[in-house]
Amino acid sequence: MRGVVMYAPGDVRVEEREDAKIVEPTDAVIRVTAACICGSDLWPYRGIEKLNGPTPMGHEYIGVVDEVGDEVQNVKVGDYVVGSFVASDNTCEICLAGYQSRCIHNVMMGSVGTQAEHARIPLADGTLVPTPGEPDKDLVPSLLAASDVLGTGWFAAVAAEAGPGKTIAVVGDGAVGLSAVLAAKQLGAERIIVFSRHPERQALAREFGATDVIEERGDVGAAKVKELTGGYGAHGVVEAVGTEESMWQAIRSARAGGYVGYVGVTHGVQLDGLKLFFTGVHLHGGPAPVRRFLPELIQLIWDRAIDPGKVFDLTLPLDEAAEGYKAMDERRATKVLLTL
Amino acid sequence: MRGVVMYAPGDVRVEEREDAKIVEPTDAVIRVTAACICGSDLWPYRGIEKLNGPTPMGHEYIGVVDEVGDEVQNVKVGDYVVGSFVASDNTCEICLAGYQSRCIHNVMMGSVGTQAEHARIPLADGTLVPTPGEPDKDLVPSLLAASDVLGTGWFAAVAAEAGPGKTIAVVGDGAVGLSAVLAAKQLGAERIIVFSRHPERQALAREFGATDVIEERGDVGAAKVKELTGGYGAHGVVEAVGTEESMWQAIRSARAGGYVGYVGVTHGVQLDGLKLFFTGVHLHGGPAPVRRFLPELIQLIWDRAIDPGKVFDLTLPLDEAAEGYKAMDERRATKVLLTL
Repeated sequence: MRGVVMYAPGDVRVEEREDAKIVEPTDAVIRVTAACICGSDLWPYRGIEKLNGPTPMGHEYIGVVDEVGDEVQNVKVGDYVVGSFVASDNTCEICLAGYQSRCIHNVMMGSVGTQAEHARIPLADGTLVPTPGEPDKDLVPSLLAASDVLGTGWFAAVAAEAGPGKTIAVVGDGAVGLSAVLAAKQLGAERIIVFSRHPERQALAREFGATDVIEERGDVGAAKVKELTGGYGAHGVVEAVGTEESMWQAIRSARAGGYVGYVGVTHGVQLDGLKLFFTGVHLHGGPAPVRRFLPELIQLIWDRAIDPGKVFDLTLPLDEAAEGYKAMDERRATKVLLTL
Repeated sequence: MRGVVMYAPGDVRVEEREDAKIVEPTDAVIRVTAACICGSDLWPYRGIEKLNGPTPMGHEYIGVVDEVGDEVQNVKVGDYVVGSFVASDNTCEICLAGYQSRCIHNVMMGSVGTQAEHARIPLADGTLVPTPGEPDKDLVPSLLAASDVLGTGWFAAVAAEAGPGKTIAVVGDGAVGLSAVLAAKQLGAERIIVFSRHPERQALAREFGATDVIEERGDVGAAKVKELTGGYGAHGVVEAVGTEESMWQAIRSARAGGYVGYVGVTHGVQLDGLKLFFTGVHLHGGPAPVRRFLPELIQLIWDRAIDPGKVFDLTLPLDEAAEGYKAMDERRATKVLLTL
């Protein structure tokens, strides 16, 4: 089968990979119908994360079940399915509490490499959620978004306690940040403040529900949030970047006792304990338990209540994945969809 | 009036201080009936926090209202009152959300110095909670404990989401940690694991409701919690020390998606963002909003449902405060009550 392999920073190739096949009786193999490139795929592309030799890429996917292992019961051949970037049994205490991304048997889908024609899905029963049927073509980008960026933004908005009457600020105007804006709106937030300097992203943020845009960053940006909220700060803040500056921008934008949901994969961040102590915020984040939200998100998409697929601003065939990485690296694209 | 003044590390004196008096119309002056020495008073005593010249000490207090400013309405002369270590208006949005310790008009009572015969209480209406009447003598230590250590331990247990069916671990066997054990028990926790190496503190922890004691610290101690909880970790953990080791001990004792309530004033702590990210815990803490819990705590004490005053293991007259500091510094006492 054809699939994306990263050889070195900046060196992405589409080539023949060994066919995906059932290894464990709890596996399924899916025919991938759409995949995409994640912001986190740029860390190794930029040489910030080390590669250990040629590495199959991708952890976001939707597709059709091709084959199931002997113990798989919840999905069957022919089902159209969405899964998240972490395979989970969905039966352990951690999963039952809604933290499937930290399932005690979790398998990171990055180790599978879903930017390919087929993909082996471990723990298929716990991981895959069937859609109500074969989706209309225009729903495909949104269903694919549910697999990671929407689910991650949604989790961040939930961690930020977005809800009726709340003011939520969002740090990061990438696909996850924009998805968090959409989520905060759906969850009923009254006011949604997004930090952004990009006109197109500002426009999509407003379309998704943002009420205010702040162009300043860091402490100056956080001070603007306080200005907009009677001196208190936002009730909740989403952090969707992952740098030390963005973490503090988020924490300082929140009021004392407020909620910070952080989902940007943190790189080089050291949080000063005493400063954090006196902010009095709730800090919660990590790899989003997207599986928790998938049934609800799929339904919202199916009902055309939300259109998160708009975060994709470049669509390319799988064979042109290298150009997709380049476009995201050069910030010519926010999020790239790969068709198969 | 007589009061405690710290001149330098290790140099605590009881001497004449200027009488407490009404400064703002929202102030009250109380006659202090009991005060105490806080673990945090040991930071300057040990030279870890700098002193800016001779400093009046103390921020925990109970007493009788002596005088009120013109605008004070909720307390009157003669009321027996308990307050917390932070004065708060109890009307701003932060207070109304239950975070009085971060009130936008907050005044740290450490700046007043309550280890004295009298104390000025700013924002008296928001800060002071009258007891149902003059307390029996045996209730005084418990009411005083409510002013800080009990309220702080209670907040930490709430932040750790202690409740029915939950396993809660407590890092720190000082007065706050022990109070957190008591709080977790009252809040309905099923299993309460305390880290302690001191036989007397272990005994009091068990009396307060601890079901398990772990003597190991750090990663080894955290691994023991996982062993006791089917490999998952505690649902919630209280951190009541404030060092980097104790923070990680707490975080690693919690399960993914679990809750860490940290109230140890953090000193020299740098939290690695990426490590924290992958734990997936909820982290919440800071200066405890004791005022939120005071009415409930006073009632529980009044009804003799709890006896948090047991954390005091040394009682001295105010004039012997220096010996109290020494005893706590040398770990001969967990918590010292000063009588007036």
